[in-house]
Amino acid sequence: MIYADNAATTKMSEASLKTMIDLMEDTYGNPSSLYTFGQKAKEVLEKARADVAGAIGAQPQEILFTSGGSEADNQAIITAAKLGAAKGKKHIISTAFEHHAVLHTLNKLKKEGYEITLLDVHENGIVLPEQVEEAIREDTALVTVMYVNNEIGTIQPIREIGAVCRKHGVLFHTDAVQAVGHIRVNVEDDNIDMLSASGHKFHGPKGTGFLYAKKGIRLVNLIEGGAQEKGRRAGTENVPGIAAMATALTEAVANLDAYKAKLTPVRDKIIAGLNEIPHSAINGDEVRRVPGNVNFCFEGIEGESLLLLLDDKGIAASSGSACTSGSLDPSHVLLAIGRVHDVAHGSLRLSIGEDITDEDADYIIKSVKEVVEYLRGFSPVWRDLVAGKGQFIL
Amino acid sequence: MIYADNAATTKMSEASLKTMIDLMEDTYGNPSSLYTFGQKAKEVLEKARADVAGAIGAQPQEILFTSGGSEADNQAIITAAKLGAAKGKKHIISTAFEHHAVLHTLNKLKKEGYEITLLDVHENGIVLPEQVEEAIREDTALVTVMYVNNEIGTIQPIREIGAVCRKHGVLFHTDAVQAVGHIRVNVEDDNIDMLSASGHKFHGPKGTGFLYAKKGIRLVNLIEGGAQEKGRRAGTENVPGIAAMATALTEAVANLDAYKAKLTPVRDKIIAGLNEIPHSAINGDEVRRVPGNVNFCFEGIEGESLLLLLDDKGIAASSGSACTSGSLDPSHVLLAIGRVHDVAHGSLRLSIGEDITDEDADYIIKSVKEVVEYLRGFSPVWRDLVAGKGQFIL
Repeated sequence: MIYADNAATTKMSEASLKTMIDLMEDTYGNPSSLYTFGQKAKEVLEKARADVAGAIGAQPQEILFTSGGSEADNQAIITAAKLGAAKGKKHIISTAFEHHAVLHTLNKLKKEGYEITLLDVHENGIVLPEQVEEAIREDTALVTVMYVNNEIGTIQPIREIGAVCRKHGVLFHTDAVQAVGHIRVNVEDDNIDMLSASGHKFHGPKGTGFLYAKKGIRLVNLIEGGAQEKGRRAGTENVPGIAAMATALTEAVANLDAYKAKLTPVRDKIIAGLNEIPHSAINGDEVRRVPGNVNFCFEGIEGESLLLLLDDKGIAASSGSACTSGSLDPSHVLLAIGRVHDVAHGSLRLSIGEDITDEDADYIIKSVKEVVEYLRGFSPVWRDLVAGKGQFIL
Repeated sequence: MIYADNAATTKMSEASLKTMIDLMEDTYGNPSSLYTFGQKAKEVLEKARADVAGAIGAQPQEILFTSGGSEADNQAIITAAKLGAAKGKKHIISTAFEHHAVLHTLNKLKKEGYEITLLDVHENGIVLPEQVEEAIREDTALVTVMYVNNEIGTIQPIREIGAVCRKHGVLFHTDAVQAVGHIRVNVEDDNIDMLSASGHKFHGPKGTGFLYAKKGIRLVNLIEGGAQEKGRRAGTENVPGIAAMATALTEAVANLDAYKAKLTPVRDKIIAGLNEIPHSAINGDEVRRVPGNVNFCFEGIEGESLLLLLDDKGIAASSGSACTSGSLDPSHVLLAIGRVHDVAHGSLRLSIGEDITDEDADYIIKSVKEVVEYLRGFSPVWRDLVAGKGQFIL
């Protein structure tokens, strides 16, 4: 199998797996316990906190461990909303192509009386700092813009957006689930107040994540109970998982340059290969995207059939994001960058990992070409287009 | 080391660990994906759901996987509160000795205008169904009573309390974190509408738990985002953790009789041994407690010093619950069963596991006796009591 769905989830790295197994076997104490065996777990936990903080340029006390990126997104946004409301500010700025963990949380807040501005996304999949600045009002409590889009992989000008927010004294959160461990992220340099990340997106374990919240931001609890995480998140800490996430992140960050150097040419080769397919188009900027992401639309076909046939050929890929598969609606991300419904339906996301080879790339290109051609042979939409009934869009 | 803090957390069973490692290595796909590799993870997830459901007499669709017991408690209580509010019912009944995951969630609701009745607990650590029935009102939205107390191990008459709730048409939730995997729990027989449990309390992994919600109860989301768990909990499912939890639970439930037969005599031996210490007393009913729990108060000493000296002797134990250690306040549980502040401070919880031996029990008894005597030698409170200044309570 060629696993080309690393944006959905990744395989744990060997080092991360080893950390996890060792701790599950030997350091299972409760870090809230007084005795030596519990304190040893506490030390592991705090070492992990320092490592995670170091990997993004934060201070250890600014890192809160969560069960994943979605929880971190929810907690960051709800915190900003409550802090804002306390000052009479109930306006939040975000974008139309955020992850559902952000969009659905904003929807909930909307029902509670918050006003939400969702910025349009340029057709290359980039949101501009000027758009953010124009949208900021006296009563803006939060700007939340994702670092890297989870479907099309485009990298947002986070540093500049953060600078705009600083200038206007508005809290800035970024869902960095697809960025952390994949590109350089530094919360200080990037002017970020809150950041969400997920362990299993960078070869750490599932069920782990973290929220960075700049010193001074008093987080609202999503989970009430024990005094763990300084009273900001109750529940016995998943020490093995947290430490394994820290191991994976440390490794990924140390390896960023090599990762980029390895993946970028393979990614670009696949893009060039798929660009040869007639009436196809890349989704999102060709260059300003993470090293592992390829996302295309092919006119006249259904993404779901494409995936199933690629699966038959031993290629694991996705259409839209994993979180929304099973839905018949086309990707809100592709709609946000201006793709029409029919075209958005025929999309393919390939998110490659470090184990990709040049031969894999060739095989992917060959397979996608075959499958697209095969499916178009059955497609009434395609036959109509070829017969001149209707207009090609791509 | 004798690990006698299994109520704080447990070591993963070999079978659970194996399940987890195998899945982390081989079945890391995202269960929301369409391709075979993702669908394999989905199958593992649904098998785990069926196994967990089977272990407590529920249906698979009634099981929601969470990051732990605290999250499950929060979600259950908030769900019942919102469902109640929609019908104009804003009264909730609970008890004074619940876990903080319950009490703090109730506190939050209180600030939002809910009225909370906390029932007194009998001095033997049992809440009576009659107390619940007396407290039920027209506007009662929820009764939440823990199955087994996390500090003193007493087993509540859940079946009878559930029957009272059914009779009055009131939703009934139980925090069964200390019960599931330790005593027989059956949601049908026990008249339970919602139940919370935690994987790491029954030799499963940390960072896992589940919420049972009877068919027809529409759960309120704590974590918004993707459509996982039928839209009731967003975030990529921690498939290895969930499956490992299911393995541990299946194993624990199959082994319940042997577990009880093994632990009960050891527990009773320790209780008898510690009863020989003058001015000591067991906390909670001697018989109606889980097989692994011993909890004592010793007059004239501080629990913290007791724990540290036992740690020196290689015994890992606790005073109060792990979640509140670091706090200077005496256990709210011990206060709830009528212990005065000074006495509650001198408490010891030993929660033994299946690996306990008869020699361990002897060593524990001998060590606690020595340490209590030693500490009393330094205690001004104890010297005053011995000198007839002040009155012994125990």
